[in-house]
Amino acid sequence: MSYIPPDRQTLDAILDTVNFNKDGLITAMAQNAEAPHVILMLAWMNREALGETLRTGRVCYYSRSRGKLWRKGESSGQTQNLVSARLDCDQDAILLLVEQKGVACHTGRRSCFYQEVTSQGLRSIMAPEILPEQLYSSTD
Amino acid sequence: MSYIPPDRQTLDAILDTVNFNKDGLITAMAQNAEAPHVILMLAWMNREALGETLRTGRVCYYSRSRGKLWRKGESSGQTQNLVSARLDCDQDAILLLVEQKGVACHTGRRSCFYQEVTSQGLRSIMAPEILPEQLYSSTD
Repeated sequence: MSYIPPDRQTLDAILDTVNFNKDGLITAMAQNAEAPHVILMLAWMNREALGETLRTGRVCYYSRSRGKLWRKGESSGQTQNLVSARLDCDQDAILLLVEQKGVACHTGRRSCFYQEVTSQGLRSIMAPEILPEQLYSSTD
Repeated sequence: MSYIPPDRQTLDAILDTVNFNKDGLITAMAQNAEAPHVILMLAWMNREALGETLRTGRVCYYSRSRGKLWRKGESSGQTQNLVSARLDCDQDAILLLVEQKGVACHTGRRSCFYQEVTSQGLRSIMAPEILPEQLYSSTD
């Protein structure tokens, strides 16, 4: 399975069907295409980020804290290549199957969802695979 | 694997670590525990909904359109039993492994993420397993 981008006109028609919220965003979940039981992360996209993602096949989010496009992996190298993108029934969330290079989480874990609720409180169920310092040492 | 709820004090401590947004909500994704490559849906929870979910092991969302708790399946019968709940690294999203009774989507599909982006536009990749009229006929 590989992703084939739509042409410009088709892409615009798809983007027109998306229900961006009052801040102009939709939620985007990334699922590991090679190990699809692993949900990697949840982030946000504005129209520009979603358009870039669907046009290039390289995942680009919108960083709410930095107020700008967040090309996943541009500082860490941990890029995401799109395999399949699926909108939900009310078009305000999108599920992305991706080939994740390295790890998805800024803590160095492969997934951001590593804090499990247990009867004893929150428990980490995943160890870092790389030190955060190593993830960002190349540019920061 | 089965879910064991925390006691009241532990639950309150967990809820205190959650970063609810300015509307008092976090995003919640449901993943099918029995077929974990299937992401069922994305919805929202306020503190009360998340607390009820973690206390009872029965998934309860918050309906933004109706402005009230949405006990999944209360009108359709398509309930979700919690198997595992995992917060993400910045505690503003939660991943729920659930045993889904029947289908998750109000359209009768097992997942809400059935509209794939293709070079030709959006394409449905999943057929309804039950008619929506049948889902809601018991109470509506």
